Amino acid sequence: MSHLAYVELAKSYRLLNHGPTVLVSSADAGRRNVMAASWSMPLDFQPPKVAVVIDKSTYTRELVEASGCFALNVPCRALAQATLAAGNQSGRDIPDGGEDKIRALGLRTFAASQIGAPLIEGCVGWLECRVLPEPRNQQAYDLFIGEVVAAWADERVFANGHWLYDAGSDPALRTLHYVAGGAFFTTGDGLDVRSPL
Amino acid sequence: MSHLAYVELAKSYRLLNHGPTVLVSSADAGRRNVMAASWSMPLDFQPPKVAVVIDKSTYTRELVEASGCFALNVPCRALAQATLAAGNQSGRDIPDGGEDKIRALGLRTFAASQIGAPLIEGCVGWLECRVLPEPRNQQAYDLFIGEVVAAWADERVFANGHWLYDAGSDPALRTLHYVAGGAFFTTGDGLDVRSPL
Repeated sequence: MSHLAYVELAKSYRLLNHGPTVLVSSADAGRRNVMAASWSMPLDFQPPKVAVVIDKSTYTRELVEASGCFALNVPCRALAQATLAAGNQSGRDIPDGGEDKIRALGLRTFAASQIGAPLIEGCVGWLECRVLPEPRNQQAYDLFIGEVVAAWADERVFANGHWLYDAGSDPALRTLHYVAGGAFFTTGDGLDVRSPL
Repeated sequence: MSHLAYVELAKSYRLLNHGPTVLVSSADAGRRNVMAASWSMPLDFQPPKVAVVIDKSTYTRELVEASGCFALNVPCRALAQATLAAGNQSGRDIPDGGEDKIRALGLRTFAASQIGAPLIEGCVGWLECRVLPEPRNQQAYDLFIGEVVAAWADERVFANGHWLYDAGSDPALRTLHYVAGGAFFTTGDGLDVRSPL
């Protein structure tokens, strides 16, 4: 991966703070998968934690529970079609023969630094997470809490803890915000506000 | 409130699905407050649930725990300065004399339909929520889960379960996505994707 830069853990929440849709990647015992998730958010600054909803029906759920790890990958506009497809098909439905959902979606991966889950190429932010087991949340709400153990960003659009999106930046690298039915918004104009108080 | 339209509960998650920053409003025994929260997300479709982080230090926390209710108000660009200020000052620091933080911020309210918390005028979406008590989440993670019992939207920008933002819509009514240090993004261009699978 070119343009890959380390993100300080204390600032890793900023990769999610503006509410982008993410891809959840996971792996266990030679199996791996990816799914889309609109329902994720930061949960703490330091040590950084995240929350994400992973439905019981998903193949990802099985791999996350078995491995105790997941990665949140922040896709950009260039990956919008793959992101939608990742949300519409289960990794269980991919025919055998060396194929898996990641490959079927035309996605490529690179190795994470702290966990076994693969990271998805072409995304613009990555959070490597270890599950903090909370059985009641997982059972009652499909809610997983993870501690962020490493974070990365595409330095063309995120550096020194800040997103660099401006009028001159490549629209294909804007992050995505899913609504429903194939409809996304991309991250829009920046707005720098000074508090009146 | 003009332009106020009822939102079907099963579609209320779409007010939050794209990850906007929200204002959390609350009230108990004649006291009321508002705070900003970037860390909220939908948690279920039906009955609709939400998750939101409400720090132990906040006045909002006290009112939510006492009343068992809160509202998530979705502010738009026109309220960006008030949203930042709502995140930077505590309702406990407002001087006495009939003033409260909501008034100090120049915000006006209208009555919710199912809960005692006030709804903030000028926002574009509103979710009335009842706390589903989860003591461990609240203590360990400052994480509150609420069931959405009523939802509303500004019909100029959200109707029939869909955001209506397009090139011709009023930029002041776009929702906000906070990053840090006074920097927001507004919700950007729509992107309608068809899955290749």
